[in-house]
Amino acid sequence: MVELLIQRRLSMATAESLTGGGLAAEFAGVPGVSAVFQGGVVAYQNAIKAVVLGVPTELLATVGSVDGEVARQMALGSCRVMKSRVGIATTGAAGPEPHDGKAVGTVFVAVALDGEASFRECHFAGSRAEIRTQAVHAALDLLAEVLGASQQTLG
Amino acid sequence: MVELLIQRRLSMATAESLTGGGLAAEFAGVPGVSAVFQGGVVAYQNAIKAVVLGVPTELLATVGSVDGEVARQMALGSCRVMKSRVGIATTGAAGPEPHDGKAVGTVFVAVALDGEASFRECHFAGSRAEIRTQAVHAALDLLAEVLGASQQTLG
Repeated sequence: MVELLIQRRLSMATAESLTGGGLAAEFAGVPGVSAVFQGGVVAYQNAIKAVVLGVPTELLATVGSVDGEVARQMALGSCRVMKSRVGIATTGAAGPEPHDGKAVGTVFVAVALDGEASFRECHFAGSRAEIRTQAVHAALDLLAEVLGASQQTLG
Repeated sequence: MVELLIQRRLSMATAESLTGGGLAAEFAGVPGVSAVFQGGVVAYQNAIKAVVLGVPTELLATVGSVDGEVARQMALGSCRVMKSRVGIATTGAAGPEPHDGKAVGTVFVAVALDGEASFRECHFAGSRAEIRTQAVHAALDLLAEVLGASQQTLG
């Protein structure tokens, strides 16, 4: 996937809550990724989601942090902060306790491309670590789909 | 260590280059860390180190990104951006190629506490993944030392 991003010269950023840097670390592990990977924001607290990523505070106050629209706004915010065309976001309840009223394992991932963003809702089982790993993979899957769809549109 | 941070109510942030989110993910893996962990910035590109974390561009232009003063400025910047008392930073050359004129395995880690920051220079061997893992541990070691020293001062 990184090869595709490099080939298409798509600058890329991440915005993470429950995965806490694990998604960015996945990209940073690939040699040559510095050609496209600008950086990421780990917005663990809602205040950081609002102040750094620009997620509307009213939205966070209304729906909490575990929400699809919040994930979309995080992805779009990471593009703005990191001057990137692609933004990938995760938010969810990793456990052991429910988070903002959402059951453990509820995860939203989102991908932004050139100012348009979509999200996906997921429900995972397992330990805190297992839920976070599944969230990373779900974000990468959605990224692959969005990139594939945009390639078809262009092709 | 997270217990110590929680006990002392020390809000905490990260700023990472070569570890690319791995340090933040280490903290995010600990249940209960949300009491202190605000978030982090993965500043993979120098432009992000400057614009988001406030590392002086003249410094980056002079010494490059793999440098102790850059690490210090990243740690202090993460405290500002994430409204935290403690900031932990990593920068270095993970390989496979030298980075900004520094040999593969050269790593600087820094810890800021209440506006004062110190750094440590390290030289690691191994694969890209192994160097990044060692960098995460070096940052955690320095954090433990700084917290220990500050406790002695207070005690």
